[in-house]
Amino acid sequence: MAVIGREESGTMSTALDPRIAGRLRRDPAGLVAAIAQQHDTGEVLMLAWMNRDAVAETLASGRVCYWSRSRQSLWRKGETSGHIQKLKELRVDCDGDAILLQVEQTGPACHTGEHSCFFRAARGDALVKLG
Amino acid sequence: MAVIGREESGTMSTALDPRIAGRLRRDPAGLVAAIAQQHDTGEVLMLAWMNRDAVAETLASGRVCYWSRSRQSLWRKGETSGHIQKLKELRVDCDGDAILLQVEQTGPACHTGEHSCFFRAARGDALVKLG
Repeated sequence: MAVIGREESGTMSTALDPRIAGRLRRDPAGLVAAIAQQHDTGEVLMLAWMNRDAVAETLASGRVCYWSRSRQSLWRKGETSGHIQKLKELRVDCDGDAILLQVEQTGPACHTGEHSCFFRAARGDALVKLG
Repeated sequence: MAVIGREESGTMSTALDPRIAGRLRRDPAGLVAAIAQQHDTGEVLMLAWMNRDAVAETLASGRVCYWSRSRQSLWRKGETSGHIQKLKELRVDCDGDAILLQVEQTGPACHTGEHSCFFRAARGDALVKLG
């Protein structure tokens, strides 16, 4: 397990083991793309971003934590909505710049209330909402 | 269908319909993240990047075309390897900065020869290759 460095005010800070950290190829902002997939149905739920601390906390806590690019802070998915993602497995791609999170999603993954963020599909020249 | 603007020297240039283009929120490099998922098994195969031209060509041709960030050019998946991806459906996420491609993958999706690029998983503090 990733080492929990300190815990204060309800937040958790962890250090990512170098054996995993060394395999991540982060972008100039220190981020990797993270795909969340419902572990049993295979439904792709969302795409977000993780920095090293987010990966470490996710592995240590077993609950998915992203990095919010808009807020520039750790984003503990479901912290306010309750729509948490329990981690089943964390996979890393061949070149280390993408992560696949297999999760157990509670409630909708999308802030719009849709179960998955990918609820629109191209039909001809337009995007239509899936039923 | 997206309009084919011209075709020369075996390449295809298309214009993405503004009804779709207008829903894409591209990063400063003009790109959106694109997840490829095998349409029938749900297996997540890879993550790559698309610009507007790549989306247009993918919709027009029915074969997935990405944008190669390393080569700074359109990347017609499988053009040399034969490991093409036929497009079954193109979905766009809630805020328009990620695409989900449901595909029929021919051969391995990964340049390593693995079927999926996500062939390593965190176990304890290390990454292990999945069986």
